[in-house]
This record gives sequence, C-alpha cells and structure tokens, in this order.
Amino acid sequence: IKPEYLRSFQFESRLMLSTWIVVRIDGCHFHRFCEDNGFQKPNDEQALELMNSCAVSLLEMFKDIIFAYGVSDEYSFVLNKDSLLYQRQSSKIVSALVSLFSSMYVMKWKEFFPEKEFKEPPYFDGRSVCYPSCEILRDYLAWRHYSTCFWLLVKSGTSKTEVQSSLKGTQTREKNELLAQFCIDYNALPIIFRMGSSVFRDKMNQHEMTLLNTVT
Amino acid sequence: IKPEYLRSFQFESRLMLSTWIVVRIDGCHFHRFCEDNGFQKPNDEQALELMNSCAVSLLEMFKDIIFAYGVSDEYSFVLNKDSLLYQRQSSKIVSALVSLFSSMYVMKWKEFFPEKEFKEPPYFDGRSVCYPSCEILRDYLAWRHYSTCFWLLVKSGTSKTEVQSSLKGTQTREKNELLAQFCIDYNALPIIFRMGSSVFRDKMNQHEMTLLNTVT
Amino acid sequence: IKPEYLRSFQFESRLMLSTWIVVRIDGCHFHRFCEDNGFQKPNDEQALELMNSCAVSLLEMFKDIIFAYGVSDEYSFVLNKDSLLYQRQSSKIVSALVSLFSSMYVMKWKEFFPEKEFKEPPYFDGRSVCYPSCEILRDYLAWRHYSTCFWLLVKSGTSKTEVQSSLKGTQTREKNELLAQFCIDYNALPIIFRMGSSVFRDKMNQHEMTLLNTVT
Amino acid sequence: IKPEYLRSFQFESRLMLSTWIVVRIDGCHFHRFCEDNGFQKPNDEQALELMNSCAVSLLEMFKDIIFAYGVSDEYSFVLNKDSLLYQRQSSKIVSALVSLFSSMYVMKWKEFFPEKEFKEPPYFDGRSVCYPSCEILRDYLAWRHYSTCFWLLVKSGTSKTEVQSSLKGTQTREKNELLAQFCIDYNALPIIFRMGSSVFRDKMNQHEMTLLNTVT
Ligand SMILES: Nc1nc2c(ncn2[C@H]2C[C@H](O)[C@@H](COP(=O)(O)OP(=O)(O)OP(=O)(O)O)O2)c(=O)[nH]1
Ligand SMILES: Nc1nc2c(ncn2[C@H]2C[C@H](O)[C@@H](COP(=O)(O)OP(=O)(O)OP(=O)(O)O)O2)c(=O)[nH]1
Ligand SMILES: Nc1nc2c(ncn2[C@H]2C[C@H](O)[C@@H](COP(=O)(O)OP(=O)(O)OP(=O)(O)O)O2)c(=O)[nH]1
Ligand SMILES: Nc1nc2c(ncn2[C@H]2C[C@H](O)[C@@H](COP(=O)(O)OP(=O)(O)OP(=O)(O)O)O2)c(=O)[nH]1
Ligand SMILES: O=P(O)(O)OP(=O)(O)OP(=O)(O)O
Ligand SMILES: O=P(O)(O)OP(=O)(O)OP(=O)(O)O
Ligand SMILES: O=P(O)(O)OP(=O)(O)OP(=O)(O)O
Ligand SMILES: O=P(O)(O)OP(=O)(O)OP(=O)(O)O
Ligand SMILES: [Mg+2]
Ligand SMILES: [Mg+2]
Ligand SMILES: [Mg+2]
Ligand SMILES: [Mg+2]
Ligand SMILES: [Mg+2]
Ligand SMILES: [Mg+2]
Ligand SMILES: [Mg+2]
Ligand SMILES: [Mg+2]
Ligand SMILES: [Mg+2]
Ligand SMILES: [Mg+2]
Ligand SMILES: [Mg+2]
Ligand SMILES: [Mg+2]
Repeated sequence: IKPEYLRSFQFESRLMLSTWIVVRIDGCHFHRFCEDNGFQKPNDEQALELMNSCAVSLLEMFKDIIFAYGVSDEYSFVLNKDSLLYQRQSSKIVSALVSLFSSMYVMKWKEFFPEKEFKEPPYFDGRSVCYPSCEILRDYLAWRHYSTCFWLLVKSGTSKTEVQSSLKGTQTREKNELLAQFCIDYNALPIIFRMGSSVFRDKMNQHEMTLLNTVT
Repeated sequence: IKPEYLRSFQFESRLMLSTWIVVRIDGCHFHRFCEDNGFQKPNDEQALELMNSCAVSLLEMFKDIIFAYGVSDEYSFVLNKDSLLYQRQSSKIVSALVSLFSSMYVMKWKEFFPEKEFKEPPYFDGRSVCYPSCEILRDYLAWRHYSTCFWLLVKSGTSKTEVQSSLKGTQTREKNELLAQFCIDYNALPIIFRMGSSVFRDKMNQHEMTLLNTVT
Repeated sequence: IKPEYLRSFQFESRLMLSTWIVVRIDGCHFHRFCEDNGFQKPNDEQALELMNSCAVSLLEMFKDIIFAYGVSDEYSFVLNKDSLLYQRQSSKIVSALVSLFSSMYVMKWKEFFPEKEFKEPPYFDGRSVCYPSCEILRDYLAWRHYSTCFWLLVKSGTSKTEVQSSLKGTQTREKNELLAQFCIDYNALPIIFRMGSSVFRDKMNQHEMTLLNTVT
Repeated sequence: IKPEYLRSFQFESRLMLSTWIVVRIDGCHFHRFCEDNGFQKPNDEQALELMNSCAVSLLEMFKDIIFAYGVSDEYSFVLNKDSLLYQRQSSKIVSALVSLFSSMYVMKWKEFFPEKEFKEPPYFDGRSVCYPSCEILRDYLAWRHYSTCFWLLVKSGTSKTEVQSSLKGTQTREKNELLAQFCIDYNALPIIFRMGSSVFRDKMNQHEMTLLNTVT
C-alpha cells in the first residue's frame, strides 16, 4: 500500500480567498417529510423554530459564520470573507455544517414536537458558493428570500399574481436595508424580512445571537 | 434580482464518469466524543455496532452504494462505477450521505446506549474520491484498514513494532481475497477483515444486507 | 507584498492519476484561415502535412505523448496514463503543448507553403480530457474521426446520406482494430484511418516516429 | 459512438464571475533560450521589445484585455472583470492567448532579430488566476514586478542587498500610483514601473495602445 499515491486521488477544491462563502443546506424530499409529519401550510411555526434553533447552534459552534438566513426547508450560512475554516476546503466545510445541522435537528425534535415521532429520518443536501462582493451577496439573500417565498405561497394555493404583488413591496426596502447595513456593518443586522428568519451575532456581545423570526 | 446570474456562481464539480466514487465520512473530534461518552478502548463494541447499523441504513436508502467499509470513527461508502446519483455532483452526494448518516446516528443512539445521553452532538466530515480501477479501489480499502487500525492500536498502548507485525499477516491475504472477489464479482464479497466491518448486498437477494463485523 | 497570499489564489487542477490524458487542440477561426489562404476543399494536402509535421515535433519533444490523431484543423495528443508531465497540472500541460504547436506551425509554414505569406496569425485553442479506460479512449478517437470527417465532407458539398454510408464501413473495422491493438499494445499501432493521420512511436526504435497520413 | 457520453468527460472550469482574470504566460526554459540566442544580460532590449510587440497584438485582438504587464520572460494579461470571453472557460482563454502570443513571437522574430535564426522553437506556459478585488490585483502586479526583477538582477550578478534597496524605493510609489489610478480609472494607467513594460488602452481612443517600456 502506498498511502501517498492513494491520497493523491483526493482533489481539494479550496474556495477562493477573500470572497464570501455561503453554505446552503436544503431538506431532502421535504415535500414528503412535511406531509408525513403533518406540518401546517405554508409555514409550520414549530418546524421553522426547530430550523432556527439548529441554525443558532451552528453559529455558536462555528465562529466564522457571521450570518444565517432561513426560509422554507433551507438555510444559508454566510462565512466571514476572510475565514480560514478548514483551510477553505469546500467538502469539509459543507459536510461538517450539514452534518451538525442534521444531528441537531434530530436531537432537538422532541423539544419542538414532544408528541411526534418521525417515520423517516430527516436529512439535508448542502453546497457552497462564493460571492466576490457584498452587493452580490445581498442579491443572493434577496433571491433566496423571494424565490422560496414565491413557490411556498404558490404551492399552498395563493395565485401567482397575488404572490408577486405581495412580495414586490418587501423587495426594494429589504434590499436597501441590507445594502445599508450588511455591507457597511454586517455585525449588526436589523433587517426585517417579512418572511424568513435571520440569525446574526450581537454587535456588543459577540457571544449572543439575535434571531429575527418574522413569519407573517 | 437575477436568479440566473446568482446561480451561475455555483460551480458544479461532477465526478468523472466510469470511476468508482468513494465517500468517506469521519467523526469530527471523536477523540473527545469517545472520551466524553466513556467508550471502551481501542474498540467499543456498542459504538461500532451503532456505526454499522447506520451504514446498513445508508445502503438500504441509496441503492447505488455497493459496499461499505468502516473502522474506528470512519466509514467509506463505495458507489457503483456507473452510478448517476445526483448526476455525480460531488457536493450533493457527500452532503446527502453524511447528513443521513448523522441523523441515523442520533436516532439510533438510544438503541445502542439506552443509559447514556450525549453532551455534545456527534457530527462527521465527508469527502469524495474517485478511483479509476478496482485494483486501486482495493488498495484504498486496504489502506484505510491498515492505517486506521495501526493508529488505533498504537494510541491504545500497543507498541508500534507489535502492531506492525500483527497487521502484516492480514495484509496480503486480504489483498488477494479482495482482488479475487471484489474486482470480479463485487456483489458478493466474502472478505474477512480482521478488524473493521464490511457491509455489502446479498448476492441472491439484492435487498438483504450482510454485515461482517469482525472486531478481534 | 505577500507572495504566498497572492500565489494561493492559483487553483491547481491536477488531472486524475492513472487515467489517459488527451490534449485536443483545434484551430481558432480556421474556416476563415483556410479560406484566406486558399486551402483546397475538403482537405488541403499541404495543410494537413504541416499539421502532421508539427505533431511529430511534439512527440519528439514530449516523450510522454504516446499517440496523436489529427483530422481537419484539430489534433489530439494522448499521454501515457502514468505520465507525470508537469505533475499532471492541466493548465501547464495544455498551454505548453498548444504553444509549442503554434510556434512550430508558424516556423514550418514556409516549408509547406513556400509561396504564401499568411495575413492573420494562426492560433489554436486547447483543452484536456481524462479517460479512465482504453476502451473509452478508443471510442473517443473514433468519435473525433467520425464527427470531424462527417462535417468536413458535408461542408464541402457531399450529401449527408452519402457521407453517412461512406463512413459507416470504416467505423466497425477501425474500432475493432483499435481495440485489438491500442489497448493491448499501444506502442505499435498499425491502425489505418481512412481519413485523418496518426502519429505513434516506433515499436522497436522508440526514437522514430511513424506517421500514417491517409487522406482519401 | 456516443458523443454525449464522450463529451461529458470534459470538465469545464469556468472562472468566477465578477472577478479579475489574469492570464500569465512565461517562457519555457528561457534560461536556455536566452543563452542560445545570445540575449544581453539582464535585459535584452530587442527581446523585450519583441515581447511587448506581441502583447500589443494580443490587446488588439482580444478587446477584453484591459491591461498587460511584462517583465523578464513573462507577461500578465488582465481581463475586464465582467468579461465573458469564451464564457470564462479557463482552458479556452489560456490556450487561445498563449497560442496567439507564441505565433506572434515567431512571426515577429525577424523584425527584431533580422540576423538571427533560433535553433529551438520558443514556447510558453500559461495559467489563469482570478482576483476578487482591484486592491489584490494591484498587489499581484507589484509582486510580479518585484520578484521577477529581484531574481533577474541577482542572477545577472548584482548582490541581493543592493537589489533590495534599489527596488525598495520604487515599491511604495508604484503601489500608491497603481492604487490611485488603476482602481479608480483603469482605462488610463500612467503608471511608471522602473523596470517592466505596461500596455494599456488609450483613454480617449480605445483603439490605440500605449506602451510604457521603461527599462532602466
Ligand atoms: N407544510 C409545510 N411544508 C413545508 C414547509 N416548509 C417547507 N415545506 C415543503 C414545501 C415544499 O414542498 C418543500 C420544499 O421544497 P423543495 O424544493 O426543497 O423540495 P423537496 O425538499 O421536496 O425536494 P428536494 O429534495 O429539496 O429536491 O418543503 C412548512 O413549513 N410547512
Ligand atoms: N475509546 C475509543 N476511541 C475510539 C473508538 N473509535 C475511534 N476512537 C477515537 C480514537 C481516535 O482518537 C479518534 C479517531 O481519530 P481521528 O484521527 O478521526 O481524530 P478525531 O476524530 O479526534 O479528529 P478529527 O476531527 O477527525 O480530525 O476516535 C472506540 O471504539 N473507542
Ligand atoms: N478548405 C479547407 N478547409 C479546412 C481544412 N481543414 C479544416 N478546414 C476548415 C473547415 C471548417 O470550416 C474549419 C474547422 O471547423 P471548426 O469547427 O474547427 O471551426 P472554426 O475553426 O472555423 O471555428 P472555431 O474557432 O474552431 O470554433 O476548418 C482543409 O484542409 N481545407
Ligand atoms: N540574458 C537574458 N536572459 C533573460 C532575459 N529575460 C529573461 N531571461 C532569462 C533569465 C532567466 O534565467 C529566465 C527566466 O526565468 P524563469 O524562472 O522563467 O526560468 P526558465 O524560463 O528558464 O524556466 P521555466 O521553463 O519558466 O520554468 O529567462 C533577458 O532579457 N536577457
Ligand atoms: O440545484 P438543485 O439541483 O438543488 O436544484 P433546485 O432544487 O431546483 O434548486 P435550489 O435547490 O437551488 O433551489
Ligand atoms: O484529510 P484530513 O485533513 O482529514 O487529514 P487527516 O485527518 O490527517 O487524514 P484522514 O482524515 O485522511 O485520515
Ligand atoms: O467545446 P467547443 O466550445 O469547442 O465546441 P465545438 O467547437 O462545437 O466542439 P468541439 O470543439 O468539441 O468539436
Ligand atoms: O508555478 P510554477 O510551477 O511555474 O513555479 P515557478 O516557475 O517557480 O513560479 P512562477 O512561474 O509562478 O514564477
Ligand atoms: Mg435543491
Ligand atoms: Mg428540499
Ligand atoms: Mg427547498
Ligand atoms: Mg480527517
Ligand atoms: Mg475523526
Ligand atoms: Mg478517524
Ligand atoms: Mg471547438
Ligand atoms: Mg477550429
Ligand atoms: Mg475543428
Ligand atoms: Mg514557472
Ligand atoms: Mg520561464
Ligand atoms: Mg519567468
């Protein structure tokens, strides 16, 4: 056996330095999982709070995550643009985060659903994306917000045009607020997404997390 | 917002067609996790059986996994060389597998440790590697076997020379058996690793899993 | 200035070990270049011989190239599957080969076209592809042969059905011959492509190149 | 033959959008090439002018190159950060540029060295690197400037300390000028590198190239 030879088949994709790393996780087959567990439509408050609680745990354990945004069955974690977590190896970062999130989700389930026992195990896919500027990062967050809300509302029965107009208003204001705040001072983010949740570190007290869970 | 623009920052690393995909997961900080939970040294039978049970679940849920090999806090899953799981996108494959494994690990914990409650959540990192031939794949498995056993025994107090000679014998026989069997008929793998566990599909009955848990 | 920081933006894509590396180069805008220089249709013998002569030079300078196949304005160079040329870094391999080919093409031009002076400089794009088995490599060569000939003949006025039937015959025989010979003994390749040229090393005398230029 | 299957082995590494693409080419074995052709040490004016002339041709043919910087046997070409040249496919960009440069170098040789005939063909390697901000790009250029000059002078006999102090002065001024000008108005770059050459587009007249060839 030649360990060095065998190891050299591992290709390491290191994420570009000095860019914002976003790790997005998304529930696998959550259409079925939500149905099996009788989640309320379009948003089940307990289910969302469980997601948020797991996200808070991730920010507590990984100091390089500076912000997280969740909506529907997905959560995006934004790492500091100078983060050197796992030397920026994509598969390590993505796998560790998605794995910890999954563990937490199962562990905390009873806390949010004391009466329910799930049949099939919940699990998530994950990916990393880099964005080279905070303007594009802001657009990314607005995109996840808009498109996920859009489909969630449409699937739950609201007409497409109704959804479009109800979301339109929130778009510009949010983008402006995000621009004003995230790019300039991302440690303190009083953004208000009409739907979706944001987790960020407290400005004064780096160890406290603030959760903005604003489901309408 | 320009979804197509934002999506195009996603780079998709697709794993080379017609090669064996190995997904290896490994417990994060398991030195601490094993200690915190009072696992026996060097191998805690209950802990290994929990790992094996999770691996069996993965083979049940992902039909493209043809074989799995676990030792210490790691498990390697081998996908069929013609698998098109998630169109061979590395991050989807790795994240889904590591996430499901983590979920199962927490869910099944009580079954194997009815009396214990873990303090910190267990989680795993994951990666994918491709091997272009079954000879190299066999060497990979032998490597994981050898090196992991080596360090496990050394850390638990056995002297390096003792470990080397005790492992030496198993090496050649295994390699020959693996070569004879895996490369020719990987659906039926009566390999016997002296340490470590192997999970593979039953030759006759594709739906049954056979677990060879052979801790010495 | 922090050289290490700046250098770390370089990502190195190393080509998978133990696979066949193919570098394919293709003339940029050769539709125009061939016209500008009054090449005969569909194949200009002098032009093809110039291409072949450059290919022979590449095999002389890069010992890791074991075989080359050219048709129309493109040439594919196959590297030994265990080649460690430039540590298998894709951009170094591709750039060095395409650069040397381009230099040779301009240098040798006068030899093949003593009377002509080109207006615009000829140049080529290049890429690398890895193939994990010699069967797939053989299919690759058959593909380049077939598809390039197909379009060359169609563009020069032959009807599609005529081309299809004239190429059909050559296909199976070639594939069988390639299979029989390339996979088993790629050092001696007496393949006869009806169109297209092959360059390979002489079996007995590693330093001599044999060129099979078989334009019909 | 299954073209789609064979084509799918091609992996396309697309360079991250909205980042500065730098293509750097470097003469292969130019230690030998310079010696063989009796170039003057440390800088042969004719040789540098040949390099510069080729660089100017590249800017003329590829409108997305906004700036080029050359020193010793290397040249760096900076593409507009929003360039979509070859859909930002790394191997196409690098190969086309290095190929065209090589062709030009051979074509123009006689113009700069009417009396000389080279023995071995000149060729270049090439690579691409992305930088996410113009500050880092500026540091990149300063790095290439500094390190290449450093070694060139040392190899030609100047003592290391002498070189260090002679280069020190130029460093800060250049960096400030580059910062002031390149980041703000990269279309008009009156930078003066003490050694090395810069090519950039004329501010007023996009079609004229300005060459600052400032060998001391
Ligand atoms: N009832 C209910 N359903 C929800 C809630 N949050 C998410 N979902 C459902 C709605 C969608 O069908 C699904 C999320 O859409 P996806 O595009 O992620 O699809 P899904 O997870 O089924 O498939 P995937 O494995 O991600 O491709 O989850 C909720 O709070 N309540
Ligand atoms: N007591 C005990 N320890 C075990 C058992 N299986 C694995 N371990 C421990 C021994 C090693 O310290 C550790 C595995 O080594 P690793 O190289 O994976 O290190 P660790 O997981 O601590 O760090 P990592 O996050 O993977 O870099 O797990 C077991 O059955 N019993
Ligand atoms: N007259 C003539 N034309 C040839 C000969 N060999 C190749 N060509 C021309 C025919 C095709 O138009 C062209 C090769 O097709 P390609 O698909 O490579 O197109 P082209 O090089 O124009 O564009 P590209 O930059 O590769 O995308 O070169 C030849 O021997 N004689
Ligand atoms: N005499 C002379 N030599 C020069 C001139 N410009 C560059 N050179 C030589 C000095 C160096 O030995 C060489 C450039 O250094 P490199 O690090 O690029 O090494 P070289 O090209 O030999 O090897 P490589 O293939 O790039 O790894 O070219 C010049 O104007 N005059
Ligand atoms: O990128 P994918 O395959 O997950 O495609 P999707 O699920 O349609 O889109 P997304 O997960 O990006 O919302
Ligand atoms: O590859 P890494 O960083 O996980 O390094 P390691 O933990 O020393 O090695 P391995 O996990 O491959 O046993
Ligand atoms: O891959 P590309 O972009 O060069 O596409 P093509 O020129 O149509 O195809 P090919 O060069 O592979 O024949
Ligand atoms: O990156 P390489 O291998 O070309 O290494 P180098 O030639 O030492 O360095 P550089 O070409 O980046 O100056
Ligand atoms: Mg998805
Ligand atoms: Mg989902
Ligand atoms: Mg979703
Ligand atoms: Mg590890
Ligand atoms: Mg571990
Ligand atoms: Mg381990
Ligand atoms: Mg092409
Ligand atoms: Mg062409
Ligand atoms: Mg062509
Ligand atoms: Mg170099
Ligand atoms: Mg050089
Ligand atoms: Mg150099």
